[in-house]
Amino acid sequence: MTDNEVFSRNKVLTIDTMNPTVKKVEYAVRGPIVQRAVQIEKELREGVKKPFTEVIKANIGDAHAMGQQPITFFRQVLALCSYPELLNDNIFPEDAKNRARHILQACGGSSMGAYSASQGIDCVRQDVARYIERRDGGVPCDPDNVYLTTGASDGIVTMLKLLVCGEGASRTGVMISIPQYPLYSAALAELGAVQVNYYLNEEKCWSMDLSELERSLAEARKHCNPKAICIINPGNPTGQVQSRQCIEDVIRFAAKERLFLMADEVYQDNVYAEGCQFHSFKKVLFELGPQYSNTVELASFHSTSKCYMGECGFRGGYMEVINMDPEVKAQLTKLVSVRLCPPVPGQALMDLVVNSPQPGEPSYTTFMKERTATLSLLAEKAKLTEEILNTVPGITCNPVQGAMYSFPNISLPKKAIKEAKALGQAPDMFYCMKMLEETGICLVPGSGFGQKDGTYHFRMTILPPTDKLKILLAKVKEFHQKFTQQYS
Amino acid sequence: MTDNEVFSRNKVLTIDTMNPTVKKVEYAVRGPIVQRAVQIEKELREGVKKPFTEVIKANIGDAHAMGQQPITFFRQVLALCSYPELLNDNIFPEDAKNRARHILQACGGSSMGAYSASQGIDCVRQDVARYIERRDGGVPCDPDNVYLTTGASDGIVTMLKLLVCGEGASRTGVMISIPQYPLYSAALAELGAVQVNYYLNEEKCWSMDLSELERSLAEARKHCNPKAICIINPGNPTGQVQSRQCIEDVIRFAAKERLFLMADEVYQDNVYAEGCQFHSFKKVLFELGPQYSNTVELASFHSTSKCYMGECGFRGGYMEVINMDPEVKAQLTKLVSVRLCPPVPGQALMDLVVNSPQPGEPSYTTFMKERTATLSLLAEKAKLTEEILNTVPGITCNPVQGAMYSFPNISLPKKAIKEAKALGQAPDMFYCMKMLEETGICLVPGSGFGQKDGTYHFRMTILPPTDKLKILLAKVKEFHQKFTQQYS
Ligand SMILES: Cc1ncc(COP(=O)(O)O)c(C=O)c1O
Ligand SMILES: Cc1ncc(COP(=O)(O)O)c(C=O)c1O
Repeated sequence: MTDNEVFSRNKVLTIDTMNPTVKKVEYAVRGPIVQRAVQIEKELREGVKKPFTEVIKANIGDAHAMGQQPITFFRQVLALCSYPELLNDNIFPEDAKNRARHILQACGGSSMGAYSASQGIDCVRQDVARYIERRDGGVPCDPDNVYLTTGASDGIVTMLKLLVCGEGASRTGVMISIPQYPLYSAALAELGAVQVNYYLNEEKCWSMDLSELERSLAEARKHCNPKAICIINPGNPTGQVQSRQCIEDVIRFAAKERLFLMADEVYQDNVYAEGCQFHSFKKVLFELGPQYSNTVELASFHSTSKCYMGECGFRGGYMEVINMDPEVKAQLTKLVSVRLCPPVPGQALMDLVVNSPQPGEPSYTTFMKERTATLSLLAEKAKLTEEILNTVPGITCNPVQGAMYSFPNISLPKKAIKEAKALGQAPDMFYCMKMLEETGICLVPGSGFGQKDGTYHFRMTILPPTDKLKILLAKVKEFHQKFTQQYS
Repeated sequence: MTDNEVFSRNKVLTIDTMNPTVKKVEYAVRGPIVQRAVQIEKELREGVKKPFTEVIKANIGDAHAMGQQPITFFRQVLALCSYPELLNDNIFPEDAKNRARHILQACGGSSMGAYSASQGIDCVRQDVARYIERRDGGVPCDPDNVYLTTGASDGIVTMLKLLVCGEGASRTGVMISIPQYPLYSAALAELGAVQVNYYLNEEKCWSMDLSELERSLAEARKHCNPKAICIINPGNPTGQVQSRQCIEDVIRFAAKERLFLMADEVYQDNVYAEGCQFHSFKKVLFELGPQYSNTVELASFHSTSKCYMGECGFRGGYMEVINMDPEVKAQLTKLVSVRLCPPVPGQALMDLVVNSPQPGEPSYTTFMKERTATLSLLAEKAKLTEEILNTVPGITCNPVQGAMYSFPNISLPKKAIKEAKALGQAPDMFYCMKMLEETGICLVPGSGFGQKDGTYHFRMTILPPTDKLKILLAKVKEFHQKFTQQYS
């Protein structure tokens, strides 16, 4: 090769030579709308004139970014763990100090700076196990089945990775709800697995229909090997809370059809609607008796990112695996060891979530006050969102029973649909992009989550502070009316 | 299906049905030796009699677990970021408070609990860019090329994932040094890529030979499509520091042969030997002139886990990509967004590493004292380890020029090799396992990292406190002599 050839060479890594499965990945929650929102924010700072003065982001379940305050106790303990010298001062209550000591004694060299065991710190896994037992009314939990993770995302991707194999018609299929949280579709695309869609029933408040599960599975069996079913409960983006009956149906279905169950339960404390209650898949599984509880394979996921904590940045989480083949478990343990360990501050935080202040401890009252205040406020905002959206002609919104999102159905004029298609855009992407440009409101189009053909939605978090949420809802209303008029 | 069939069904996920690429993954640093060490520790606690009273772990580069103290300033800032109320007290110096404010103002809702941008917090990436510029004598660094990561592991796996594609003879090959850090082999196995070995030259202090690179590449081209070359400098497990000439050779080789360069520089501050110096691949690349600096694609990796910080548990790190195709960069940004963001406390810590106390700031003196003390101690222990190991007949140890490991060559008696093979064990695994059982010392066999056929090694960290290190080295010496006698 001459020097000139060296100089003018093309790149080694190009869009044509790169990993093709990565190219197939889509991730709407941080997609083009959000990138444009960031740009607009920059333009505003630079003095560009807009019909609004700030961007309101309702695109992601990021509670602290929307002004929610952290739980005081958790942060005190984290400060103590970060700088243990503070244990010698009298700034923090005794229970905070005790928790910090409990965590630190379990860290190598009593430092959060040591790698932990790859599966997570022993005592944290034990605390998680006791939490699960309390939550599930005494159903036993073996800490050996608990894996701490880097957020729930990490656990979900790891489990999918274990499950996937095969080529052509024997490629692994994984059933996911539509609408879905796009981590699932992204991970399946990256792993080269087949995404098998089952549709939630919008008419019945986004519940699961057994007949739809059966349809979806029968269809899939024609071209792949369906091995697992994922459920998100409470639901993202749809905000429903599944009934006990629904969960039972899914478990029986998984048992009958030999599917590995993956239960994404990161919103387990986020239940607002009257008559709704969180039922863990594990608890229901055990209530169905040993023929189920001894056989059905289940992985369930939790996170520090949601509920009343909203501590997304710490990337804490855990998964519990039940009835997993011991050889596979050994493989799982090996696999997670390659990344060394989940972040220790996130593990510490997970420990605090499952081992929060108890009655009689000095921090209990404040903790309960903060927790209750956050959850009540979310419940209020869930109601407010549903109510206001349903006053808009052309918008129909199911009750936000849980989680942090509403996913209203929007009717779009034919002309708008045509114009969007001419631009090569999904119609609800066209709608959301226009809303962003005209009002500064950042939502995610339903097409980013999947929806029944010919229906359109957007996802909106209920997280902005109440006054901002009201402004946001008023603007959405106004925009929708204007948009409908413009394209009619 | 009858109920009985449901009850007695086999598992969905078994060793036969699981992802076969995961099965191929090996990870010696946390492999069977370490699992046995954990077991033995438990047995000791339960009162089981052993010829030793404690397990000394020299198997992993985990500084804090070995008693190294965190940098005071870093932990003060992390405590402030965890619990910003502390900003109102006068416990911490002003510069610590300023750094905390600098980080918090860049977090959503001024909280480490908010998700950050997927590429990492803007201001942290800017601080990283300025650090790289200072380090490399002014070579410019664009913060847009900096990605914060969940430890260096995450960055390395992500880059490999982008690179890998193809089937059969066009499968992507990635050149890695042998001995290697087993993250590389594990990630390549998982991705289904071809691991292309090039051997470091043990006789020349584990340096890189151009002729060996050429041999390895020519060989590989017969059966795969080699697209990248990985270099670890300073080296793990081998402890060498590559000369400027070596690095230049590798860059010219990569340019000529059209290989994407991956430079693992997590030990960049860990250089001990006189006459040795750390040269970043980026700096050398730019010194070679625009025909190289404008074309050769490079990703370099750094971490909070090593150097003088040793903050492994926080999982902080960054990568810088140079000359990456803009379309590929967009794909990279999309890919990292699926996992939402790296842990924010780790990002904060990375910021402190690249933006440490400056002369004139109140924490400067203490910071420098702590930093220097840690690095000098490591230098001492590097020397001590080399010297003592070289007094043992049958052990030959290269100077530990940098990083945190020695990787001595051990001669094993024929009889021992035969016995190991009869047990289906690698001979140095047999040796290390015996050492663990008899002395409580936990090392990793060379076979876990790769080595020339017929040679045997172990990897030992230099991290234990000096007094413990001396005991450890004495025990290794005694064991090796006994072992040699026993099998001669
Ligand atoms: C349903 C669901 N699962 C998983 C996650 C991932 O959360 P994290 O990785 O922050 O724990 C989210 C985040 O929004 C989610 O909504
Ligand atoms: C050469 C090398 N690269 C990468 C890593 C990964 O480190 P981390 O993921 O903790 O940053 C290590 C850890 O020991 C290493 O030795």
